[in-house]
Amino acid sequence: MQKRNATCAVIGAGDFIGAEICKRFAAEGFTVFAGRRNGEKLAPLGEEIEAAGGTFFGRTLDARKEEDATAFLNEADSHAPLEVCIFNVGANVNFPILETTDRVFRKVWEMACWAGFIAGRESARLMLARGGGNIFFTGATASLRGGSGYAAFASAKFGLRGVAQAMARELGPMNIHVAHLIIDSGVDTAWVRQRTEQRIGKDALDANPDLLMPPASVAGAYWQLYQQPKSAWTFEMEIRPFGEKW
Amino acid sequence: MQKRNATCAVIGAGDFIGAEICKRFAAEGFTVFAGRRNGEKLAPLGEEIEAAGGTFFGRTLDARKEEDATAFLNEADSHAPLEVCIFNVGANVNFPILETTDRVFRKVWEMACWAGFIAGRESARLMLARGGGNIFFTGATASLRGGSGYAAFASAKFGLRGVAQAMARELGPMNIHVAHLIIDSGVDTAWVRQRTEQRIGKDALDANPDLLMPPASVAGAYWQLYQQPKSAWTFEMEIRPFGEKW
Amino acid sequence: MQKRNATCAVIGAGDFIGAEICKRFAAEGFTVFAGRRNGEKLAPLGEEIEAAGGTFFGRTLDARKEEDATAFLNEADSHAPLEVCIFNVGANVNFPILETTDRVFRKVWEMACWAGFIAGRESARLMLARGGGNIFFTGATASLRGGSGYAAFASAKFGLRGVAQAMARELGPMNIHVAHLIIDSGVDTAWVRQRTEQRIGKDALDANPDLLMPPASVAGAYWQLYQQPKSAWTFEMEIRPFGEKW
Amino acid sequence: MQKRNATCAVIGAGDFIGAEICKRFAAEGFTVFAGRRNGEKLAPLGEEIEAAGGTFFGRTLDARKEEDATAFLNEADSHAPLEVCIFNVGANVNFPILETTDRVFRKVWEMACWAGFIAGRESARLMLARGGGNIFFTGATASLRGGSGYAAFASAKFGLRGVAQAMARELGPMNIHVAHLIIDSGVDTAWVRQRTEQRIGKDALDANPDLLMPPASVAGAYWQLYQQPKSAWTFEMEIRPFGEKW
Repeated sequence: MQKRNATCAVIGAGDFIGAEICKRFAAEGFTVFAGRRNGEKLAPLGEEIEAAGGTFFGRTLDARKEEDATAFLNEADSHAPLEVCIFNVGANVNFPILETTDRVFRKVWEMACWAGFIAGRESARLMLARGGGNIFFTGATASLRGGSGYAAFASAKFGLRGVAQAMARELGPMNIHVAHLIIDSGVDTAWVRQRTEQRIGKDALDANPDLLMPPASVAGAYWQLYQQPKSAWTFEMEIRPFGEKW
Repeated sequence: MQKRNATCAVIGAGDFIGAEICKRFAAEGFTVFAGRRNGEKLAPLGEEIEAAGGTFFGRTLDARKEEDATAFLNEADSHAPLEVCIFNVGANVNFPILETTDRVFRKVWEMACWAGFIAGRESARLMLARGGGNIFFTGATASLRGGSGYAAFASAKFGLRGVAQAMARELGPMNIHVAHLIIDSGVDTAWVRQRTEQRIGKDALDANPDLLMPPASVAGAYWQLYQQPKSAWTFEMEIRPFGEKW
Repeated sequence: MQKRNATCAVIGAGDFIGAEICKRFAAEGFTVFAGRRNGEKLAPLGEEIEAAGGTFFGRTLDARKEEDATAFLNEADSHAPLEVCIFNVGANVNFPILETTDRVFRKVWEMACWAGFIAGRESARLMLARGGGNIFFTGATASLRGGSGYAAFASAKFGLRGVAQAMARELGPMNIHVAHLIIDSGVDTAWVRQRTEQRIGKDALDANPDLLMPPASVAGAYWQLYQQPKSAWTFEMEIRPFGEKW
Repeated sequence: MQKRNATCAVIGAGDFIGAEICKRFAAEGFTVFAGRRNGEKLAPLGEEIEAAGGTFFGRTLDARKEEDATAFLNEADSHAPLEVCIFNVGANVNFPILETTDRVFRKVWEMACWAGFIAGRESARLMLARGGGNIFFTGATASLRGGSGYAAFASAKFGLRGVAQAMARELGPMNIHVAHLIIDSGVDTAWVRQRTEQRIGKDALDANPDLLMPPASVAGAYWQLYQQPKSAWTFEMEIRPFGEKW
């Protein structure tokens, strides 16, 4: 592995997508700074990455807190220039509108939209000082479609997409690649796998190993976005497994 | 004027669009409840509506405060069944991303998205008890496009659209017409008129009186949405003046 | 009925939507010129309209033939100024891609897109000479979504939407209102009614008379578009029944 | 270079984008079959590719002629399994609607939409027999936006997108990756370069070498699409240079 003098910050480094993003960018030589609510849960991931020769720092981070997010990014940038920030905080909930409490609506927005704004703005501040960078946001089906019961989640994801678009238009000419990756399917986690087995049967799922999106494929899509030359940047890219209905 | 046993609540009853919506629905026989930050500013509007035979109640309302919004809607519904709620709070600001403060981002969201969610949910609660109703949201160009400098405003308007879509899909089958009206232009206010005169000249503007959208035309569009039969409801409708570039 | 010195041309005047458009605009005082493949089938519609005091001319028209379409519109305009042209030719088919023959693909395009271009362009020519007018196109779910099996139909409807958008942007400033009405549901015809009864049962359908979109509601939506002031024109409007899944 | 037992067919192999796609896929070991109106113009490209160790066949092809397109694809597939087909025929024209002749409208559609349908369908036929493949279509700004004067071009590009969507939804589950690449900018050709120099000055352009999209970047985007695992396919991806207004 060829080490780079560059940091990739992953905000919302959960067990699935976030962890795979960390592994991928570490394997490509980035110093990876990962933040999640309970930073101690990042220990095994850190061990795995370091065993493979990568450099990893796991941090406890509540991304909704501006000062904490800023400090996290500053630390990452002071270790090596912040070249990539990936905002991957999720907050998928479904409630009928009358049961969508103030608390839920506000919390989902703070996690999925507000924290993304903070992460994006503070990354941009650091990257502009360095002359460029990459800011990527994880989107979902609900970024484009407000389904029944998704008032809170869709509103937050729509809102995050608005932030991403505005940043892309402003920051592209300043050499910052802002992208919004729409994951238009479930991702292969224990829970989704179980639900899918119940729906189509274990045999059908085993026979079609690519029916669910492996978290590593999301990381692969982010790697594609990173590799794009500045002469042909993608702002929005959607991904789904080959068998997905859409 | 034939009076109806029905109330129309207008949240965000500003001097232009909001006032015209009030006048139109009052002229069609609705009891109109109007809320805005400084309710005392509604006095002249109330006098005008009452002089024309309409029924109007102006209230001071901070639509971001759940209890206040709920109380406002409950009062409206207790006066006569709440049949229409129009959420028309605006919050258009433009800042480079690095100058978009936490305070601005949060405040714009609270005004343009959060308050819309509260208004929508509480209207739905009252209307479901009555068997139906109409909940309309004012959108803007920024509901569909996050332009440079509009991270805060576009994020909030995208988010409001997400709320509206989710509510429309859930509540349509329960006999509530949820619609999102996208105003894809400036609206004819003193400020916009002045700016347009500077751009194209007073003569050109005088020669094309429909070049700017009169607030009454927005009210007319809402009236069209209200009149639609439930067999052919519109969720999203865009309006712009004939000469607008888009 | 107050007669107008104005003509409304309906191209694709089938038994359901087209007929209701004719009836509505005739009832509003327009001289209606209706064209369809077998013009003799328009006789009963003409009788009904004339019995109600309206003015109606039914013509045999293959809208794909430029000279015929032009002659039809010229005749309409020479009778009274052509103020409205509504293009309503449908061509809904579903075939797997490998079974979508050249003949089908081309024919569907000629009916649903090419003929719309001709109707739009020739109406514009007449209306520009008169200083203004209204050109409306009937869209469908497939105008926005290319579903499996709909390569031919969606391609044609996407293409018609492209024509409509380009015309709206060019002709709006010249005082021609171009609109695209998206019918996002089945319309209540004998065939759709039968299929829906099989799906949800006759009782459920009888209990919800607005579950299917009556052709008259489509005509009503066109009438709303016609009534809009030029200060607030809609280009695209979607309609669906209250219970429709979308 | 590691040769593959696989063919990539490029339909619309012009001097810029098409040529670069040919070079890229040849460099990756594909046998490349290229078709364009005047096949003799492909000779220098063939020499360049073969000098670099690639395998290339240039053919004269009018992609609007079904039998010719079918024969071209069959020949490609008989040489080695057809694994990729890229449809890249352009037909950008701009005319006011009244000056958009029947001939132009039909010809643009035949080149940009009809020929794409034929190429897609016949590729699918061959690929389904082999168990999978990749069918990619070149889109443009006009695939999503019907600008003034673009009735013909936008209609054709909208229509091609409809074909691509319908094919993607039907063929994805059958292991064929269908994608639509939207090039949302001018591409760096002699003509665009000259026009841009006139607009911003030669110095500004020289100082920003990535301001125009090099044709090779389009080829790179197609190569990214090809490399995606079937668990995370993109249907639609947009690309534009970092400084592009959008």
